[in-house]
Amino acid sequence: MIRFGGRYRRGVDLVHRVSSCQGDFVLYAITPPRQSTPAERLPEIAKATIERLARLDIDGLVLYDIDDESSRNPAERPFPFSPTVDPSEYRAHYLQAWQRPVIVYRAVGKYRREDLRNWISEQDPLRTLTVIVGAASSGVAPAVSLARAQAMGADLNPDLLLGGVAIPERHSRRENEHLRLIAKQQVGCRFFVTQIVYDLNAAKNLVSDYRYECESRGLDPVPLVFTVSVCGSMKTLEFLRWLGVDVPRWIENDLRHATNPLAASLEQAATTAVELIDYCRRLGVPFGLNVESVSIRREEIEASVELAAQLVAHLRK
Amino acid sequence: MIRFGGRYRRGVDLVHRVSSCQGDFVLYAITPPRQSTPAERLPEIAKATIERLARLDIDGLVLYDIDDESSRNPAERPFPFSPTVDPSEYRAHYLQAWQRPVIVYRAVGKYRREDLRNWISEQDPLRTLTVIVGAASSGVAPAVSLARAQAMGADLNPDLLLGGVAIPERHSRRENEHLRLIAKQQVGCRFFVTQIVYDLNAAKNLVSDYRYECESRGLDPVPLVFTVSVCGSMKTLEFLRWLGVDVPRWIENDLRHATNPLAASLEQAATTAVELIDYCRRLGVPFGLNVESVSIRREEIEASVELAAQLVAHLRK
Repeated sequence: MIRFGGRYRRGVDLVHRVSSCQGDFVLYAITPPRQSTPAERLPEIAKATIERLARLDIDGLVLYDIDDESSRNPAERPFPFSPTVDPSEYRAHYLQAWQRPVIVYRAVGKYRREDLRNWISEQDPLRTLTVIVGAASSGVAPAVSLARAQAMGADLNPDLLLGGVAIPERHSRRENEHLRLIAKQQVGCRFFVTQIVYDLNAAKNLVSDYRYECESRGLDPVPLVFTVSVCGSMKTLEFLRWLGVDVPRWIENDLRHATNPLAASLEQAATTAVELIDYCRRLGVPFGLNVESVSIRREEIEASVELAAQLVAHLRK
Repeated sequence: MIRFGGRYRRGVDLVHRVSSCQGDFVLYAITPPRQSTPAERLPEIAKATIERLARLDIDGLVLYDIDDESSRNPAERPFPFSPTVDPSEYRAHYLQAWQRPVIVYRAVGKYRREDLRNWISEQDPLRTLTVIVGAASSGVAPAVSLARAQAMGADLNPDLLLGGVAIPERHSRRENEHLRLIAKQQVGCRFFVTQIVYDLNAAKNLVSDYRYECESRGLDPVPLVFTVSVCGSMKTLEFLRWLGVDVPRWIENDLRHATNPLAASLEQAATTAVELIDYCRRLGVPFGLNVESVSIRREEIEASVELAAQLVAHLRK
């Protein structure tokens, strides 16, 4: 039932794939170190990351831009918020050794208009893609709106590939996330990256509604990049929920009772990813996979790297 | 990943399996003909059913007892309600050729106490199992309560295997269906039959919560029998929803856009059943499968028989 043959060639060029509405790529996402990290430690942290990823043969790196989301969720954050190094600065200074494209997130709420204009203008569209993220809460008005930031990209650097965020959980509540994606696509988004997926039904519902809506409007679907992750402890699970990720009860039970929760989570995440791959292929929706580690515990990071390795092997076999 | 070897022998005895908390059986469920059916047609209808099922090598037959559920759902019923022949009468008069056990449903709301006592007393526990179903709506007080009917079974015919109904959708709303199952188990239920499953997550959540609750109380889990079905038209889908079945949006979309919705539904139902089989095996929960046809259209009935055949083959390979 699973068909892979001939779909994937080594050395996929992420920029080419996305710009031609093709998928079948694997990304790995990291959050830059905290601003409180001593400057002299940054090179070694970056080096460890590059060394981990060099073994993987992934198609691109994702650099998150973390904004304080306490305005979105009044509940206490299970891991305290701490400002992180600017992803673009971090890349420029410490990740030069990384040769493949990078998708740099920009949380618009954090930047002045002029800074964002300059940043967009300066990017090399063959090396950089960007995901513009709106303000964490609709109650907070950023200096630059999401729509305005997207228009800037089109004006200042038309070849720069812009992506947006897709949230299956929002689709579960409001059933209109597919329309939001299409509206963003019509102002220039060329791919979408989801929040971490644990609820397979919610993700499939979004893929399905998006695909049929594209068809009825005569649009080509753009790549949907599914973020997957491992979860090795109840603390990490609690954090996922705080972030707004729906984790089904059975997955929580499995993790709670597993003798090795991290191994169980790794297997479960790989199964979820494979089901999404199969489903997207069946529907003809281009897709990518994005692996991240929610936790900064070493074993959870290593399990996420193992997950990425499995997904690369799966797509390329 | 799928393990079948040695788990299943031909000629499984349903009664023995259920009484020893084992699963791995396949049932097929039918609703007796309408009372308005001319009496002379009943033998040929029963004969056609027996002939269909004789090819299947299933382990037992389920005979539903349909009560008018309009008290439960005020929305208009997509297929009109029509009283059906009493399942036990139908079996006694027309299904003598069926040699294997039959699970006869009894909707307690329909019977006087004395009639139910007599019926329970008269059953041969080697040939009959029964599922006692409560009143369709808690607003309607039946002559015999569900608890009282279960107590009758224990008093009058202690070897008669009693089952109950399990509703994963209720678990999605209230998160306590597993506790209801355990409470019924403690007053004598030896197996549970679900409503038709389309929402795999909801079913897995119930299995998982049930399993871990049994473990924490030192109880052996009893067989959970998952009802699956095919859906060949939007009319059937509408009826499923009227019955309270949660059908995920992506499944609805797939059916709506399929060139052959019935074939798509058959494949989807088989996939759902196999995932439940794998999940129950992984968790050590005994399970059965029950195939029914919601619709009375010939091609939907035939597809449901094909589904049962596939599941028998899958379990016995």
